[in-house]
Amino acid sequence: MPRYKLTIQYLGKNYSGSQKQLKDKTIQNELEKAISTLTKQNISTIFSGRTDKGVSALGQVVHFDYEGEIPKYNLNALLPPDIRVQKIETVKKTFHSQMSAKYRHYQYKIRNNDVENVFDNCTLYYRYPLDIKRINESLSYLIGEHDFSAFKSSSDNPAKICTIYKAEAKRKDDLITIDITGNRFLYNMVRTIVGTLLLIEKNNFEPGKMKEILDSKDRTLAGPTISPEGLTLIKVGYDRKYENKLRKAK
Amino acid sequence: MPRYKLTIQYLGKNYSGSQKQLKDKTIQNELEKAISTLTKQNISTIFSGRTDKGVSALGQVVHFDYEGEIPKYNLNALLPPDIRVQKIETVKKTFHSQMSAKYRHYQYKIRNNDVENVFDNCTLYYRYPLDIKRINESLSYLIGEHDFSAFKSSSDNPAKICTIYKAEAKRKDDLITIDITGNRFLYNMVRTIVGTLLLIEKNNFEPGKMKEILDSKDRTLAGPTISPEGLTLIKVGYDRKYENKLRKAK
Repeated sequence: MPRYKLTIQYLGKNYSGSQKQLKDKTIQNELEKAISTLTKQNISTIFSGRTDKGVSALGQVVHFDYEGEIPKYNLNALLPPDIRVQKIETVKKTFHSQMSAKYRHYQYKIRNNDVENVFDNCTLYYRYPLDIKRINESLSYLIGEHDFSAFKSSSDNPAKICTIYKAEAKRKDDLITIDITGNRFLYNMVRTIVGTLLLIEKNNFEPGKMKEILDSKDRTLAGPTISPEGLTLIKVGYDRKYENKLRKAK
Repeated sequence: MPRYKLTIQYLGKNYSGSQKQLKDKTIQNELEKAISTLTKQNISTIFSGRTDKGVSALGQVVHFDYEGEIPKYNLNALLPPDIRVQKIETVKKTFHSQMSAKYRHYQYKIRNNDVENVFDNCTLYYRYPLDIKRINESLSYLIGEHDFSAFKSSSDNPAKICTIYKAEAKRKDDLITIDITGNRFLYNMVRTIVGTLLLIEKNNFEPGKMKEILDSKDRTLAGPTISPEGLTLIKVGYDRKYENKLRKAK
C-alpha cells in the first residue's frame, strides 16, 4: 500500500490549531474529511507536529497510507480555500512525517511602523521601534543545544532539550522577519522566544538578558507567549543538512 | 489655510471603488467621513484619480484644505482597518493631487501555479503556464506615446493619448508581477492590457499581436477587462523623473 507525503499550506486564523479535535474546526479535521470523501475510506493522517490555534503553515508535512490514486486537484477541490495541498508524493514505508523530521523552520513576522499595513497577512503589528542588531544579539544566545525550560508551556512533555541551528532576524523597510530553525520545539516555544525578545526591547535590557533567562530555566523570567498571528511553520526538513554542519564544526 | 497631502493605502475588495458615491461604500466616502468627524467640519477631498471597484492602493494621494491639525493616529482610529493613512504632509497651495501628478505606477500580480496560495492578497490566481519572456515582448510595444483606444472602456473621455514610461513583467518563483507606469491611464486600461496579455498567451499568438491591437484602435480586438483583484495603484509621482528621461533620450 503506497505511503503518501503531502506538503500543505494553511492560514491559521480560522482554525483551532492543526491537531484533530472532536468539537472544534482544525486543519487535520478538514484534511481527513476531504481525503475520506475522495477515497471513500476513513483515512487517518499523521502530521509532522502540531501548530497551535492561529498559527499558519507554508510547508506542513503530513503522511498516510492508501491503496489508490490521490489527484491533487480533486483533493484541493474538497478543501476550504485557506487550506491548500501544494505537493503530493509517494514515499518509502520508512518515511514518517514526525519521526523522520530532522529540523523545523518557523518564521515570525512583525510590521514595525507607526501605522498598520492593510496588505499584511499573518503578521503582528508592533508600534514601538525595534532594533534589529540588538534582536540578533539576543537570538544568538539561543543557538546550540540547550534546556529550554524557561520557554516551556504548561504542557507535560518532560524533555526540554532542543537544538537551535539558526536564529536570525532581518529587516526590510518596516517588516521584520525572525527565522528560527531547530531539531524540535517545545509547545509555544517560538512564541515565548519572540515575546521575550519584545520584553527585552521594550525594557531596553541588555541582549545578554536572553542568556540569563535561558540559563535560569525559569519560565516566570521569560516574556509572555506572544500572539500566534505572526507565526508560520515554513518548512519541515528531512535531510541532515544541519546535523552535518554541526558534526563538521565539532 | 494649510493644504494637506495624504498618502493612503487600501484594500479594494470591500469597496465600490475610490470615488464618492451616494449609496455605495467607497474609499472617499469613508475618508471624508473620518476627516469630517475629526475636524467637526464638512471636508471635501480630491483624489489623484479614481480606482475601480475591487482595485487596491499602496500609495493613493489625496489633498484637501483645512485650518488646524490632523494627527495621523487620530485619523486612522476613525477609519476602517482596510484603509490606512500612511503619511500626512502640508504642501503648497499650488499642489493638486490630480493636476500636479506626473506619473502613475500600477502593479498587477498573478499567482501562476497549479495550486492557489493561501497567503495571497490582491493577487489573481491563474492556472495555465505563462511565459515571462513573451509577456515582456508584448508589453514592450506599449512603451511610448500612443492612442490607447483599443484598451478604452465605455467611458466618455475623448482623450485617448497616453504615454507609457515603463511596462515590465517579473517572475519570482510562481508569482508574476506586471508593472506599468504612465503619465495617465484610461478607465480600465491596465486591466484590459493584462486581459490582452493573457489572451495572447492562452492562444499562443505572437507577442507582436499586442502592437497590432494597439495600432487598430479597435476595442473589440483586445482581450477582456480582467478582474480588479490583482490590481494595485503603487505610486502617484509628482517629480519629472520620467519626463526628464524622455527629454534626454530625444
